[in-house]
Amino acid sequence: MNKLILTLCIVSLINSLSAQQALWGGQNIVSPEIHKDNTVTFRFRAPKAVKVQVTGDFLPTQKKESSYGTYDAPGIADLQEGTDGVWEYTTPGPLESELYSYSFLVDGLNTYDPNNVYLNRDVASITNIFVIGGVRGDLYSVNQVPHGTLSHRWYDSPTLGKNRRITIYTPPGYEKSSQKYPVLYLLHGMGGDEEAWITLGRTVQIMDNLIAQGKAKPMIVVMPNGNVAQEAAPGESSLGFYKPTMQLPNTMDGKMEESFPDIVKFVDANYRTRTNKSGRAIAGLSMGGFHSLHISKQYPDMFDYVGLFSAAILPDANKQNQSEIYQNIDGKLKVQFNKKPKLYWIAIGKTDFLYQANMDYRKKLDDNNYPYIYFESEEGHIWKNWRIYLTQFVPMLFK
Amino acid sequence: MNKLILTLCIVSLINSLSAQQALWGGQNIVSPEIHKDNTVTFRFRAPKAVKVQVTGDFLPTQKKESSYGTYDAPGIADLQEGTDGVWEYTTPGPLESELYSYSFLVDGLNTYDPNNVYLNRDVASITNIFVIGGVRGDLYSVNQVPHGTLSHRWYDSPTLGKNRRITIYTPPGYEKSSQKYPVLYLLHGMGGDEEAWITLGRTVQIMDNLIAQGKAKPMIVVMPNGNVAQEAAPGESSLGFYKPTMQLPNTMDGKMEESFPDIVKFVDANYRTRTNKSGRAIAGLSMGGFHSLHISKQYPDMFDYVGLFSAAILPDANKQNQSEIYQNIDGKLKVQFNKKPKLYWIAIGKTDFLYQANMDYRKKLDDNNYPYIYFESEEGHIWKNWRIYLTQFVPMLFK
Repeated sequence: MNKLILTLCIVSLINSLSAQQALWGGQNIVSPEIHKDNTVTFRFRAPKAVKVQVTGDFLPTQKKESSYGTYDAPGIADLQEGTDGVWEYTTPGPLESELYSYSFLVDGLNTYDPNNVYLNRDVASITNIFVIGGVRGDLYSVNQVPHGTLSHRWYDSPTLGKNRRITIYTPPGYEKSSQKYPVLYLLHGMGGDEEAWITLGRTVQIMDNLIAQGKAKPMIVVMPNGNVAQEAAPGESSLGFYKPTMQLPNTMDGKMEESFPDIVKFVDANYRTRTNKSGRAIAGLSMGGFHSLHISKQYPDMFDYVGLFSAAILPDANKQNQSEIYQNIDGKLKVQFNKKPKLYWIAIGKTDFLYQANMDYRKKLDDNNYPYIYFESEEGHIWKNWRIYLTQFVPMLFK
Repeated sequence: MNKLILTLCIVSLINSLSAQQALWGGQNIVSPEIHKDNTVTFRFRAPKAVKVQVTGDFLPTQKKESSYGTYDAPGIADLQEGTDGVWEYTTPGPLESELYSYSFLVDGLNTYDPNNVYLNRDVASITNIFVIGGVRGDLYSVNQVPHGTLSHRWYDSPTLGKNRRITIYTPPGYEKSSQKYPVLYLLHGMGGDEEAWITLGRTVQIMDNLIAQGKAKPMIVVMPNGNVAQEAAPGESSLGFYKPTMQLPNTMDGKMEESFPDIVKFVDANYRTRTNKSGRAIAGLSMGGFHSLHISKQYPDMFDYVGLFSAAILPDANKQNQSEIYQNIDGKLKVQFNKKPKLYWIAIGKTDFLYQANMDYRKKLDDNNYPYIYFESEEGHIWKNWRIYLTQFVPMLFK
């Protein structure tokens, strides 16, 4: 390295705040270190700390009580102080292949890992992430396979009277092809937005990898913002940098469903799509599962493939909500299933707080002999499951 | 809010690690709070801390010494402890309109603001950001104006023998128009990548706003990765989640310049572009300014507009480097300027460590009567200046 390049490095380091920390005795260590046997070592430099802990979904959960009942809280493990004020924790055994989230607690203060720049935002929470390779983790990783294109666009919703941001994945080869592609509409949950399936859901990586493996048909994936009060994700709209919250108006009052044809119309007008029912799928998690249920029955000629991932099924929605969308659910389901959708897929985790609501909904479908496929996973209402459901659902589409 | 929606909120909060902190007595406070008079209050909850400080580029810099000479380090201010363990600092006066970065120091431990989810990565440094509105800050903000599309694509570089990720902005109306657009190629500095101009540079916001104000022509902006050893930004390539570093091979050895026609060819083949010299501009910061200098002189019929932002001009490059790119610089500059480029723009800050190298380069141009426009700013080798230079440069293009 010549002297000017070295100087460039040093000056740029000095100009950046936390690199400055690295220069001045800070966090220039490796964390997390994923060992060959898939054990993982976490390190954190904190010479003055009395206690350093790590918390994350790679640790066994602990049962906690709240006024809403028992729930699984993320586990916590203590790091041991070593030389130079660097604390360390190594998992007692290998971790299974997965994408994990974690953060540190330094004398009770929650902080991120300054040696890991990879962060995910979930509503207003920031956590570091890492991937353990293997069958599942590799699906969530960037590999040397043909890559699709990810676009952040804006579309006009006449029904909502606003321009709105939308995230669109086009598969490898789309730009150079003249063929028409099927479309998966993929909806986020409460507190999410048009970024959620990309960042937390690893949709680009999952699609690139499943297509490369020949397990999924090349398809367009459209990820709209399901909060109709928003133009766009926090920080991406004219509201600027505000603190994200789950308490948004108009999330489950029919407006998303009513305005959904604006999205389909935009996509069909702007992409080379198959514009019939057999070329369209809709799926969503939690609130997005609720939206998918109601959108697919409201427009029974629109989607041949429906995926309900841990769906927030509200059996009393028709009583609680004035929107026409939630009226006459049974009658609309009858119309939908009489038209024989090619796939109606319901997935939920065994410990999901929505488990019973989904069982009740399955019973309704069973009682009417409406065919569907059911997939039950371990654990509950978590992104780990939604990524798994996506990898299960996508290979069944457009075959 | 009905009970099920409330439960959904609670469960999602519990499932997210740092929101859990908010539930259990954590950081549910407002920070930063930008007051109407543009003073700003920072808050941090740390009941056990002895000292809480904030550091960032909104504070006056402090002179520091190193073996590389005197330099400006970011200022540090002490927060005062208030009730409930919430520490607070309010700027003594209003901040000027700008995008600022900051982080906290809790008993010397550098950490982020858990009440502000907006973070930027600069090489391996993560800092929170906020914007003070006004003439400049508004240019860096999302406003209710027509929005362009941002795409993350991959292109093939036969010269480098690899597929590489590239970031492309198309202006509002591009998709519905049949016109051909001019193209600005915008290059990052050492340690940056194809994300840098988007995140740190706020290019999407700057372009949307300048176009809406009629100050810039609608144009495509192409932001390649200038580190030819990389497929893509850290975390976006098949190397996975690794710790970013500035020490990459092949950054200033001619390979970026040699392979640049692959990028232009890809863009012209995939977008409705003006494919002549008068429809192309190239600009870059620091190492990207070095690349822009050499690419524009190497291919003198390719670009009519050249912008050198704090360019890392290496007067001895032709001696140090074997690449043909850096040979016969004077002869190539003569060819380039004989072809009368419409704009050759040089910008640098008064305290930039590359100031003298840029003055020497200007003298060379002056001695040869090669016309250029010079813009000198306050301060040095920082993103604040590169955003300013972009807003100065873009309105001069394609007129």
